[in-house]
Amino acid sequence: MNGQTSNRQWILKSFPIGLPKPDDFEMIDRPIPSPSEGEVLLELHYLALDPGQRFLIDPENRAVSVGNVVPGWGLGRVVESRNASFPVGSFARDTMAQAGVQEYAAIHGDNLVPVSGKAPLPWYLGPLGMPGQTAYFGLLDVGQAETGETVVISGASGAVGSIAAQIAQIKGCRTIAIARTSEKASYLGNRLGIKLVISIDDPKFKLKFDELCPGGVDLFFDVVGGDILDSTLNHMKRKGRIVTAGMISTYNHTSRSTGLTNYDLVFRRNLTWSGFSVGDYASRYAEGTRALEEWSLSGKILFDTHIERGLETFPAMLRKLFTERRAGKLIIQLGEPHLGALE
Amino acid sequence: MNGQTSNRQWILKSFPIGLPKPDDFEMIDRPIPSPSEGEVLLELHYLALDPGQRFLIDPENRAVSVGNVVPGWGLGRVVESRNASFPVGSFARDTMAQAGVQEYAAIHGDNLVPVSGKAPLPWYLGPLGMPGQTAYFGLLDVGQAETGETVVISGASGAVGSIAAQIAQIKGCRTIAIARTSEKASYLGNRLGIKLVISIDDPKFKLKFDELCPGGVDLFFDVVGGDILDSTLNHMKRKGRIVTAGMISTYNHTSRSTGLTNYDLVFRRNLTWSGFSVGDYASRYAEGTRALEEWSLSGKILFDTHIERGLETFPAMLRKLFTERRAGKLIIQLGEPHLGALE
Repeated sequence: MNGQTSNRQWILKSFPIGLPKPDDFEMIDRPIPSPSEGEVLLELHYLALDPGQRFLIDPENRAVSVGNVVPGWGLGRVVESRNASFPVGSFARDTMAQAGVQEYAAIHGDNLVPVSGKAPLPWYLGPLGMPGQTAYFGLLDVGQAETGETVVISGASGAVGSIAAQIAQIKGCRTIAIARTSEKASYLGNRLGIKLVISIDDPKFKLKFDELCPGGVDLFFDVVGGDILDSTLNHMKRKGRIVTAGMISTYNHTSRSTGLTNYDLVFRRNLTWSGFSVGDYASRYAEGTRALEEWSLSGKILFDTHIERGLETFPAMLRKLFTERRAGKLIIQLGEPHLGALE
Repeated sequence: MNGQTSNRQWILKSFPIGLPKPDDFEMIDRPIPSPSEGEVLLELHYLALDPGQRFLIDPENRAVSVGNVVPGWGLGRVVESRNASFPVGSFARDTMAQAGVQEYAAIHGDNLVPVSGKAPLPWYLGPLGMPGQTAYFGLLDVGQAETGETVVISGASGAVGSIAAQIAQIKGCRTIAIARTSEKASYLGNRLGIKLVISIDDPKFKLKFDELCPGGVDLFFDVVGGDILDSTLNHMKRKGRIVTAGMISTYNHTSRSTGLTNYDLVFRRNLTWSGFSVGDYASRYAEGTRALEEWSLSGKILFDTHIERGLETFPAMLRKLFTERRAGKLIIQLGEPHLGALE
């Protein structure tokens, strides 16, 4: 434990209204916790920045109370273990955002997944972690994406969306990726190899959307909500499916949304629209990990990270998540670099 | 064929904007059609007034063209047959709104269901017809209503809603029926025996809704949309289901709806929301009819009709459907009364 005796952590000072402000958080020192039976103590090496964190600390949601550590997904090394499945020295990632924005966390083994380390460690917070599982189960299980179907992915340059778009292409779906900016659209096309990409800032967005799916959309995998959801509703086929794995556009709202105007199409076109949380698939993560590891290691799924060092960067990084135009998963690295694969 | 040689019919003159006006329709005489192979000629005895008719002739929907007969569900006697399953003299109801608002219709047997006549004939346009099948399959198949679940039914004094509420009670669901007026609420409680009823015109509507489902709603069976849908979203349990079998509140809109403000709860509460059309269950109508006939004949499902005579009443009756405060299925009777059971 590097001789460290205290655990720096970011606690929630107030539920953010709108875009989170530095004042909403405070960094404090607490004693390093001791694991209870079944738990392990993780020395955290990587912390993910994820829109889901904003969702968990929303005043409407209150997944944690003020004064508690800010929730978040993390990956670290086991430094004390009271769970035989996670020996000291092994690496694990957490599945329930319990790692939190801190240096050490005591987490029950039920909420941890061992990390093989075959891929670079930060990837286990991306395609091999929560975002990858969300894309995998949302697209293939909730959404039942089938070869040859027209599938639209929103937020496609984000962590979940970029993996979903790549999985949809792997599965032989006619995959249309929606990005917010032409810069992100280029990234999706040139770097990730997504063949059909449209960007919202394109003045011909609507026209191009029409042209790309003349027969309508079978499956819409949405992590954005708002205007994108409203306009994609217009493109849905009769009996099409919508899977909502996030609603990023609503997380920083200061008031209720202005409303979904095309919601009547859920009835008129006999759509099925499902909201889902990947946590409900915990018992099947091993299945997801097998597929995602194979695709990632063979280069069928590409993934970019944007890593900054130091716990103190958290409030700025969280804002960056919603304001920065650059693509790639935001990750905070604690301690020494472990960028390479373990083996 | 009573010596009649012409077929009076209401044709669509223009797609209605808002509440249908008499001018949107015109009554004309046409020759009585001759059935083709597989078809029968029905002498129509009862025509249903149904919100679905308004939906079919909506400018956004255009299920028929201007100049064609107004679609509608009807029941009649076979007077010419080129389909062995429907002998002359037998009674049948149509399943695809092809009977139309007219005196005679040539319809293929595939789109007809024989009418046993064990119950009063008009009931085959209600609990034993399209509304009953919609309630049955919407609630039990799409909605998967389970004993002990809290189920909310909107538009509960309407043809579909009143049957859905009764089926939900038969199935042992904690059934909350929503009616628009206290008068309709009394009807549901006193006449149909629905135990938990709230009316939208009650100033304590919200409070009562809260009190009736403190643990949240498992299944919402909606035929209304709009404000009722928006407020019921707030009451949904995590992983609750919404089944939309109609959106009456949107049929007479002159512009796009103002929007659904609580749509983000589809994600936040991991709901599943399905729009459905009963036509997709055509292959299973016999199953629905068996159950619905048993419940209707044993008095477990009650149903009231409001019958007026004469084809010329159609435009006024269609308006009444959306403006009249009285409960009970609106039906137009043609020719002589056949109100009793056939046997």
